[in-house]
Amino acid sequence: MAKSRFEYVRTYEQDAILLPNTYIVIRLDGRGFHRFSAHYNFQKPNDKRALCLMNAAAKQVMQQIPDVAGAYGQSDEFSFVLSRECKMFDRREAKLVSTFASTFTAQYLFLWPEYFPDTPLDGNMLPSFDGRAVLYPSLREVRDYFSWRQADCHINNLYNTSFWTLVLGGGLSEQDAEQALMGTNSGEKNELLFSRFGINYNNEEIMYRKGTMLIRDVGTGGSGSASASASESTESIDVREWHEKSKRQIEREKTKRRKAEIVELHVDIIGNEFWTDAGRWIS
Amino acid sequence: MAKSRFEYVRTYEQDAILLPNTYIVIRLDGRGFHRFSAHYNFQKPNDKRALCLMNAAAKQVMQQIPDVAGAYGQSDEFSFVLSRECKMFDRREAKLVSTFASTFTAQYLFLWPEYFPDTPLDGNMLPSFDGRAVLYPSLREVRDYFSWRQADCHINNLYNTSFWTLVLGGGLSEQDAEQALMGTNSGEKNELLFSRFGINYNNEEIMYRKGTMLIRDVGTGGSGSASASASESTESIDVREWHEKSKRQIEREKTKRRKAEIVELHVDIIGNEFWTDAGRWIS
Amino acid sequence: MAKSRFEYVRTYEQDAILLPNTYIVIRLDGRGFHRFSAHYNFQKPNDKRALCLMNAAAKQVMQQIPDVAGAYGQSDEFSFVLSRECKMFDRREAKLVSTFASTFTAQYLFLWPEYFPDTPLDGNMLPSFDGRAVLYPSLREVRDYFSWRQADCHINNLYNTSFWTLVLGGGLSEQDAEQALMGTNSGEKNELLFSRFGINYNNEEIMYRKGTMLIRDVGTGGSGSASASASESTESIDVREWHEKSKRQIEREKTKRRKAEIVELHVDIIGNEFWTDAGRWIS
Amino acid sequence: MAKSRFEYVRTYEQDAILLPNTYIVIRLDGRGFHRFSAHYNFQKPNDKRALCLMNAAAKQVMQQIPDVAGAYGQSDEFSFVLSRECKMFDRREAKLVSTFASTFTAQYLFLWPEYFPDTPLDGNMLPSFDGRAVLYPSLREVRDYFSWRQADCHINNLYNTSFWTLVLGGGLSEQDAEQALMGTNSGEKNELLFSRFGINYNNEEIMYRKGTMLIRDVGTGGSGSASASASESTESIDVREWHEKSKRQIEREKTKRRKAEIVELHVDIIGNEFWTDAGRWIS
Repeated sequence: MAKSRFEYVRTYEQDAILLPNTYIVIRLDGRGFHRFSAHYNFQKPNDKRALCLMNAAAKQVMQQIPDVAGAYGQSDEFSFVLSRECKMFDRREAKLVSTFASTFTAQYLFLWPEYFPDTPLDGNMLPSFDGRAVLYPSLREVRDYFSWRQADCHINNLYNTSFWTLVLGGGLSEQDAEQALMGTNSGEKNELLFSRFGINYNNEEIMYRKGTMLIRDVGTGGSGSASASASESTESIDVREWHEKSKRQIEREKTKRRKAEIVELHVDIIGNEFWTDAGRWIS
Repeated sequence: MAKSRFEYVRTYEQDAILLPNTYIVIRLDGRGFHRFSAHYNFQKPNDKRALCLMNAAAKQVMQQIPDVAGAYGQSDEFSFVLSRECKMFDRREAKLVSTFASTFTAQYLFLWPEYFPDTPLDGNMLPSFDGRAVLYPSLREVRDYFSWRQADCHINNLYNTSFWTLVLGGGLSEQDAEQALMGTNSGEKNELLFSRFGINYNNEEIMYRKGTMLIRDVGTGGSGSASASASESTESIDVREWHEKSKRQIEREKTKRRKAEIVELHVDIIGNEFWTDAGRWIS
Repeated sequence: MAKSRFEYVRTYEQDAILLPNTYIVIRLDGRGFHRFSAHYNFQKPNDKRALCLMNAAAKQVMQQIPDVAGAYGQSDEFSFVLSRECKMFDRREAKLVSTFASTFTAQYLFLWPEYFPDTPLDGNMLPSFDGRAVLYPSLREVRDYFSWRQADCHINNLYNTSFWTLVLGGGLSEQDAEQALMGTNSGEKNELLFSRFGINYNNEEIMYRKGTMLIRDVGTGGSGSASASASESTESIDVREWHEKSKRQIEREKTKRRKAEIVELHVDIIGNEFWTDAGRWIS
Repeated sequence: MAKSRFEYVRTYEQDAILLPNTYIVIRLDGRGFHRFSAHYNFQKPNDKRALCLMNAAAKQVMQQIPDVAGAYGQSDEFSFVLSRECKMFDRREAKLVSTFASTFTAQYLFLWPEYFPDTPLDGNMLPSFDGRAVLYPSLREVRDYFSWRQADCHINNLYNTSFWTLVLGGGLSEQDAEQALMGTNSGEKNELLFSRFGINYNNEEIMYRKGTMLIRDVGTGGSGSASASASESTESIDVREWHEKSKRQIEREKTKRRKAEIVELHVDIIGNEFWTDAGRWIS
């Protein structure tokens, strides 16, 4: 029963529901992190404390939201992939996106002093993150999504490493450094780093080059005997099985995920190897 | 140009755009605040510190996002109404909702020690908020939306005041108190408070009974000479004028809003009086 | 109760609901009418039979769907505006759009022999129409929508009249005619028609120049005493009244509309005059 | 460049885009076919002419829209499944749904005289169809969708056959027949038909019992060597292959589909057999 004659305004609410049986990827992006990182004197090209803080906040999000199968982060962004069967908030888009943004933000603020013990946050320059949800019908696309983000990480980090080496190591102005890199390809940037500064890019810290992948280590035999692999023929197994999963089974898997240790990886996620045993962490 | 062959995954992104020239209301709700308020021993039925913290966080959100015309909060929720012409994020729903949730959360955590100086936050019980956006085509509906929330505040607060008076003042168990109130109307609750406990509900703190309305005091003559009023015939003026506003005018108004003092009100927003001069703060 | 274990597939259905209290405009467009009109030897630049057939089909649609307040057509398109309170199909977009497309198509085929008595339809070249729905929050935008279509009619018809006069009257090839008109403005086209062919464009048939507006003549005092006018301050009256309309009142108005005669107008709908008394037909 | 100052109204258009790489099912339903079938004296429980007319119209739709992989019809409804890679209208929902509704309607009217030679259509009672689009991420769900519709066909046809046998053969009033069938299960209806009227339901015309499936016979080896099967592990093959298909390959397949003969089947589509070789017609 309506509690007041104003309740008709509720009929204007329209909940966008995310299509069932598709993977939901939620990507969070730092808002105005160019200014934010300058304000707090983040180190260039990478501030290890800031990246570890991102990873720690993401890990906490996974801890609290067992529907998350895995997550990938680089720079000021983090992407969370939810399991295909996820029914959180009945798959309402706004609730999902806002909850991830809010939960991540809370953790980022809470953990800040641990990573920046000497730099208190300034109320006029607090971190915040916007978010979006994207749907992928198959594991193939999820894999390509993560590959896309890691390729982006590589491109940006090689550029930034070259740029800041020219500025900090080579004494160039920022404009001159930009000029020097314009139009160069990856090989040329690698060559420049090596020949002029003796830097072998491949020896740079792997977290900077590859970003961070977080998965739950649910052990072998993840979801039943299905060992999903985006590169192999196991998609079919998922497909055959997904609608046969009982509620009890889904609950059991959720509990398993909740208990599983979250593993932090800095590895190539573009090639086949990482995905061979994907069934261990994603379904 | 695509930076990698994986970029096709972007074509799966679908941005829901909120219909132009409608009021956007974004409502944030505390997630699991029943447990949250118990964990931090919030006072019952109202914890003044917690409500003032909500208000302070909302005020900071308005400070930082000049598109917000006004906001109303009660209990663990806050609703923000954006001006009709708002073009923030090109009116993309996910970005808007997540940004409000994230910004509010950041402020809530940052301001927490000011309102709960003796109660440090616990990393396993951090505050978070989910959000949603609703569209209203006319000021009439915006007014009814806020009236709906204030009516809700009244109903809940009268109930909670009665309930906790029975429990804390009357020594009833929570079950017995619930039983005692079942089926009672407002008059009966008022009577019960007065006859058994000598409490005149209308003398209870007005912030508890009315919630908190935040508006920008942009002074008289708000948007040009238009003094919008949801109860009067001035809707038409908005309508005639809205698409004649030049970009410069919109920018000028935005600057005006940014500079305007944010005023905190604890008043009736259901009757006509509050809305008579609504053109001062909403357009 | 589910009739079969397959019924879960229904949970994938997602009905887009059109925001309440906004005007719905449904525009139908002929599919491949360039080929269609060539196939049936439509006269150039305008085929009166074809335009009258469009008008007749649209009139039948209005006859059968009382939620339509008015409609405007030109060339192979027709736009229908539904009253703000329209609740047809609970405002489900797909049902609305498909029903208009289907109903219009049925009438177009049924009425064809009346307008093209000597040209039977060919099963391999049947007429069809696609559709879309657009929402407008205020009468101002509805007015501007119709103005947009009539301005489009004017621009296209002046061009087509000039083009075909050059080809059919002036003996130019189609390429040469296109060339001759390239970059000319309205004044130059008018001048060309007059000086070279003695044609005063303003004397061309008004239906070709202005298109066709269909409204219901519900008599004076349309919706109660409210005489809505998009150019005047009466928007406010609508706004104040719309949510006070009782179901009975809405039904009464619907009946009135159903009985009202549909009037076909070939007039200017951009200037104020047509809209002065708009409350007569749109609410 | 804007042709008129009114063109801003276009910014209100919002095209819902159907998620890529998912199967699109478009279902059309006769509007008011209870009244329609009474008006034209359709035979009960099934009018063969009417069903064949539905099938013929659907076949024409498939003929003209090569993106349709298959279609299933029963009673006054028809469902079309589009191939996963379908890019028609850039997957804009409103255009797709309205085009199917319009094209089907046009064919239905055009073909009417062939199936009802002695019953001219009445302008006040023309057939029309509404439509909707539903997305399915995997072939499993597409199969279950069609199974759902065929199960529905079975349930309704068994009921209608029993009902009309009681009325027409048994002389019961419609109310009494309804009463007699209330709460009976399939076995009891079969028994009733057999014991009281000597009717073996399984000997009823198969088109009535199973509905009509239309597929394109593109021959063996459908899409390359992939023989998709919703019940077998070949989903994976689709998945691995779909994004490797070149534009040329997609065009080639489209041409193949356009040329393929459309086959009409009245068979069980719930069991495995029909789907074993599904790769022949759906991809």
